[in-house]
Amino acid sequence: MDLFEYKNNELYCEDVPLASIAQAIGTPCYVYSSTTFKQHLEDLEQAWEGTPHLTCYSVKVASNLALLKIVAARNLGADIVSGGELFRALKAGIEPSKIVYSGVGKTASEMAEALEASILMFNVESAAELELLAKIAADKNLTAPISLRVNPDVDPKTHPYVATGLKESKFGVPAAEALELYSLASQTPSLRPVGLDCHIGSQLVSVEPFREAASILKDLILRLRQSSIPITFLDLGGGLGINYFQEKPPTPAQYAGALKEVLSGMPDLTVITEPGRVVAGNSAVLLTKVLYLKQTQAKSFVIIDGALNDLIRPSLYGSYHAIGLVKSNDGPLSPVDVVGPVCESGDFLAKDRPLPPVAAGEFLAVRSAGAYGFSMSSNYNSRPRAAEVLVSGNSFEVIRNRESYQDLIRGE
Amino acid sequence: MDLFEYKNNELYCEDVPLASIAQAIGTPCYVYSSTTFKQHLEDLEQAWEGTPHLTCYSVKVASNLALLKIVAARNLGADIVSGGELFRALKAGIEPSKIVYSGVGKTASEMAEALEASILMFNVESAAELELLAKIAADKNLTAPISLRVNPDVDPKTHPYVATGLKESKFGVPAAEALELYSLASQTPSLRPVGLDCHIGSQLVSVEPFREAASILKDLILRLRQSSIPITFLDLGGGLGINYFQEKPPTPAQYAGALKEVLSGMPDLTVITEPGRVVAGNSAVLLTKVLYLKQTQAKSFVIIDGALNDLIRPSLYGSYHAIGLVKSNDGPLSPVDVVGPVCESGDFLAKDRPLPPVAAGEFLAVRSAGAYGFSMSSNYNSRPRAAEVLVSGNSFEVIRNRESYQDLIRGE
Repeated sequence: MDLFEYKNNELYCEDVPLASIAQAIGTPCYVYSSTTFKQHLEDLEQAWEGTPHLTCYSVKVASNLALLKIVAARNLGADIVSGGELFRALKAGIEPSKIVYSGVGKTASEMAEALEASILMFNVESAAELELLAKIAADKNLTAPISLRVNPDVDPKTHPYVATGLKESKFGVPAAEALELYSLASQTPSLRPVGLDCHIGSQLVSVEPFREAASILKDLILRLRQSSIPITFLDLGGGLGINYFQEKPPTPAQYAGALKEVLSGMPDLTVITEPGRVVAGNSAVLLTKVLYLKQTQAKSFVIIDGALNDLIRPSLYGSYHAIGLVKSNDGPLSPVDVVGPVCESGDFLAKDRPLPPVAAGEFLAVRSAGAYGFSMSSNYNSRPRAAEVLVSGNSFEVIRNRESYQDLIRGE
Repeated sequence: MDLFEYKNNELYCEDVPLASIAQAIGTPCYVYSSTTFKQHLEDLEQAWEGTPHLTCYSVKVASNLALLKIVAARNLGADIVSGGELFRALKAGIEPSKIVYSGVGKTASEMAEALEASILMFNVESAAELELLAKIAADKNLTAPISLRVNPDVDPKTHPYVATGLKESKFGVPAAEALELYSLASQTPSLRPVGLDCHIGSQLVSVEPFREAASILKDLILRLRQSSIPITFLDLGGGLGINYFQEKPPTPAQYAGALKEVLSGMPDLTVITEPGRVVAGNSAVLLTKVLYLKQTQAKSFVIIDGALNDLIRPSLYGSYHAIGLVKSNDGPLSPVDVVGPVCESGDFLAKDRPLPPVAAGEFLAVRSAGAYGFSMSSNYNSRPRAAEVLVSGNSFEVIRNRESYQDLIRGE
């Protein structure tokens, strides 16, 4: 679900016409529906009801403090992948005891920061990382709670850039190696094995790969427990897909249901999940203005003021984002390329997309832009980054100011 | 040429060991050789000697103010593509009368800023843009000097994302339409046609496409002059390639020589070029530290502290960047994936790259990172952007501070 709907041919975010936001704040800007974001969190909570669990929102997906404060207000946790994300999560008020720290390249100083904050656990991705973490914790007279990220070699059938659980992947360790590392960790005073982790990929649209991975991890937990390594957290990662274009991803209930089934009968286990896209993805649009129409012999172009630097997914992954007119009309559809001002042919939001007639000055909403939208944006072509706006009911607030020219040269 | 060379197995930038910069400034950081940057500008100036010409450095390629000040100090011009780049160019002291403004999506306010600054000319890319520019100039009682960007439909044989002169491209107008638009412009009091422009693509490694485009444009200028439209600037764009990996791009002398030949006998013509990559590309490295080595059954990984957010070219374009150990050794080469800490499989700097043995804590230099390196960087994964350092002889200075955690949340 999402709360971007047409009322009398005008696209609204909740009870606010998007046109009024564009006029007040300017374009391009990201517009988030707080109610949608909250509802997606709520759906996940309901899906896991009855099972000991902890939802750790994946900060990298959309990391604005206002969104993280929504997560904190619901007493949910965070999945972080850097010191910067730890800083954000703590700043937003997320409890350190609900933060898990993933990623293959944690630096010594980032580990120190997370140890000092007393996070729930480090998802360790290699033997070398385990060794460094043990040393840093020992130096501080602290004990690092750890899980190992196991690479189950499951094919998630998604874009290769976001498939992370294959054996060719940089992520995680093979199950066999994990057993040795757990044994080593349990003998290291500054380490305390508490969990087991995996993350097989992003934007998955079937429960099967999740089920397969959970089954592998369940067996591994049983073996670890037999070796007196008392794993109590199973972190299944994120990866639940959303509907961008005719995908039929499982619902949170179907997803959690399948996993509950696999894990039934496991005592003393808290299931951690790291949802991100499924929470934020359909919670926002990138709101843009049409600058020019351009007709060449080969193509029709709609040139908008949002670009590759604002939303890189179409260019980087070939991703599809639905695009809607903020003021709809029922004119005939014809295929256009929706492109931005950035000076390369890779700067496109959509190619050969059927759209009704649209004029310069009109607003377009690039849908499902909440996940990996603003968080991947850059200043390429010296373009100030877009504003971010949060809508709640019939009001909205700016949750990140549009950058200025002065911001571009800060630090130079 | 570039001034990144080994002396006693240590990689230097000019006379400064890169290791000393890494220790002083931290990693990741971009390190530019000012002498290399200047030499590339000088080579181009020499190549065009004897021909009326203006070199407009392409700001988008590497836009740090310190680099732009080098351009300004040599009385060269700038090719800009946004209001932000105009701001940068003016701030660095580049003369407005040497600034050309390209790009398909100039906004009304950007046009107004450039008109007020009295830039040399607007490279107009569509009929709709011409109309808006005429209106804005008229409102200000100013005359906009224009050239039309013509799309010569020449195949530059480069990556599709940076091929910009094909008829399917969003850039430019077909030659036939250009004649009509020039005629219209010459009858519009607020417009003054002064030039003709094209840009066929980026990272070209042969002079042929340049020659072909110049020949088409030359004929067009002759036709325009016959129609009493006194074109005096021919902007041939940028696009000259560099050596990333066994490419054999033409030298500046070969490039300018071929174009001079095509254009010989054309009176009253100033040739404008927009070099960027050929100036900045080999002038910098991305200096990184090895965090971990990781061996899996399928692969060997070298995990460094530089990532996709710092240098997106390998992931976005599949680009090759040479990678060298800052302290070299003559151990046996074996293939490794050089990857960063960012949580996706798309975060790699090199795949299956033969490297000698390397240990955690060692520094690696990702070569030829000066063009589209820092300028495309982002805060993805809440990673503060890298510092930028400029070396001159035996000294270096920070030309952009590393971002802090506080910088990440500015404006939120």
